[in-house]
Amino acid sequence: MIEFSDLEAFRKALTTMPDLDVDAQNGAAARNGQLTKPPGALGRLEDIAQWYAGWRGNPQPKVTSPQIIVFAGNHGVAGQGVSAFPPEVTEQMVMNFQHGGAAINQLARAAGAQLDVHALDLDRPTDDFTQGPAMSERDVVAALTAGWNAVRADTDLLVVGEMGIGNTTPAAALAAALLGGEAADWTGRGTGVDDAGLTNKIRVVAEGLALHKGQGDGLETLRRLGGRELAAMVGAIARARSLRIPVILDGFICTAAAACLAYTAKGALDHCIAGHLSAEGAHARLLDTLGKEPLLSFGLRLGEASGAALAIPIIKAALECHSGMATFAEAGVSAG
Amino acid sequence: MIEFSDLEAFRKALTTMPDLDVDAQNGAAARNGQLTKPPGALGRLEDIAQWYAGWRGNPQPKVTSPQIIVFAGNHGVAGQGVSAFPPEVTEQMVMNFQHGGAAINQLARAAGAQLDVHALDLDRPTDDFTQGPAMSERDVVAALTAGWNAVRADTDLLVVGEMGIGNTTPAAALAAALLGGEAADWTGRGTGVDDAGLTNKIRVVAEGLALHKGQGDGLETLRRLGGRELAAMVGAIARARSLRIPVILDGFICTAAAACLAYTAKGALDHCIAGHLSAEGAHARLLDTLGKEPLLSFGLRLGEASGAALAIPIIKAALECHSGMATFAEAGVSAG
Repeated sequence: MIEFSDLEAFRKALTTMPDLDVDAQNGAAARNGQLTKPPGALGRLEDIAQWYAGWRGNPQPKVTSPQIIVFAGNHGVAGQGVSAFPPEVTEQMVMNFQHGGAAINQLARAAGAQLDVHALDLDRPTDDFTQGPAMSERDVVAALTAGWNAVRADTDLLVVGEMGIGNTTPAAALAAALLGGEAADWTGRGTGVDDAGLTNKIRVVAEGLALHKGQGDGLETLRRLGGRELAAMVGAIARARSLRIPVILDGFICTAAAACLAYTAKGALDHCIAGHLSAEGAHARLLDTLGKEPLLSFGLRLGEASGAALAIPIIKAALECHSGMATFAEAGVSAG
Repeated sequence: MIEFSDLEAFRKALTTMPDLDVDAQNGAAARNGQLTKPPGALGRLEDIAQWYAGWRGNPQPKVTSPQIIVFAGNHGVAGQGVSAFPPEVTEQMVMNFQHGGAAINQLARAAGAQLDVHALDLDRPTDDFTQGPAMSERDVVAALTAGWNAVRADTDLLVVGEMGIGNTTPAAALAAALLGGEAADWTGRGTGVDDAGLTNKIRVVAEGLALHKGQGDGLETLRRLGGRELAAMVGAIARARSLRIPVILDGFICTAAAACLAYTAKGALDHCIAGHLSAEGAHARLLDTLGKEPLLSFGLRLGEASGAALAIPIIKAALECHSGMATFAEAGVSAG
């Protein structure tokens, strides 16, 4: 278990991260060329397999221990009526996760993934970012640390997600602060606010932007406009990089958190792939800016890692093909 | 085991097929509205679950016994140089399937599906359709019957696919004959022919069209321009309908076969969903005409049921969520 002393210690950890193993990736590419299929016939599955092999440092790997982590947090801005659901639903849904009743429980079981749920100080919401920073340095560092330490050492594919009533609002604020544009460009209906709710939400995001935009790097922006579950996702994504564990990003909120990392350290999301394009409109623009093409697009807008969890079987299948198929020579098939 | 006496007997079977159970589908929709998620937050997964429930006649079903059937056949037109691979590869790949070395073996295992492979008279290719009908009535009925009888009674989700060197050529001819347009509109590079190969392939398709277009319904067109593995897929899709088993369509060749059914009996593909958009260009147009929106798009162009097999975990996940999640009342979560 690591304890970061301050944001600077976390920043420092980001400077010593491993990169993709080019030899392993090249070895995977060579193997791919010998498999019993026409060249390129497995399409994007071939790219995924070689990318994964490069990150794992193994030209013929499989996915055997995927882990899904859902972080939950509460938000001061929820008091401004930015969600269609009351704040107590965060804790109720954590109970639902623990009792196996939520969508992510079913998706984790279906994907053969370990599911871990971390509730982060639910009785202590972040501060309202229209009034000041959402978190103290101590709070954001604690959340980053919680995320970092939540990643299991034997995980070979990580999915991170979140639960937090009101958290599309900090996500929109983070995206706008980091990528530019107006509050309205990044603010959507979340779990389903009506027109008046959307107008109010845009006002809240705009007020946060006015107070905090341009006040530091991605991590400082995370402290000012984010939330505990967003910071914990950042910590987990960084920890996965240090362990050479590829990550599947979930929807808008997860991707906004990941953007904080990308805007702090160049290439910090190279070990990440986008799992699913959310119905939350700004997600497409956010992914595009980060250079990530989502694997799936089913119109989900649930959070709790659901979109990324759906993509686990796709990554698994890509590696099953890559590492399990016979070569032309092994199978005695004419190579055309 | 059924033995169809002639094409007319098969046509007759199509007239007595079950339809979707609206009560079961409505029951599933009612359940969906009570699950612990914002309304609509699982996007297309919700539609899939209700569609599947309707076909199974059960408002709360799961997918526990998926079956993948790969049919293999050889083609007279392969002698005209329409493929980048020699015809003996069909049989070599069947051996590869039997030894577990092909992509579909890995995908079936990853999806938890039963894989069955049926090689259809590989030593007796169909006739060259530029010279006359590809199959006699006896041959096409035998292939339809083989497909019909290949579906297991306990299957609850069916994937059909094919292997047959040269078979994008009959698929293009079928699509053009049924849907209209020029040979060039429907003819692509298959497993990878070069420019000269593509020109030659278009000529072959055009000659087939000139000889057989407009000479009967979808089944007669199948007899004239299709192949054994295509007819067997038609038989299996029809058998699945009779057993209320939803079907995932694979790529261009599978969908061209399915089109023969759609152009014989109205609504004959209502129990089918498209698994994956093939890199074979005409597939998008074919799916669009049939009103099918593919679940996945990874640029595969392999056949052997691979694209549809990749979609099995998505259908499974949709039903796991639908049938496994807690309701708001069960979980004690505030419904907003």
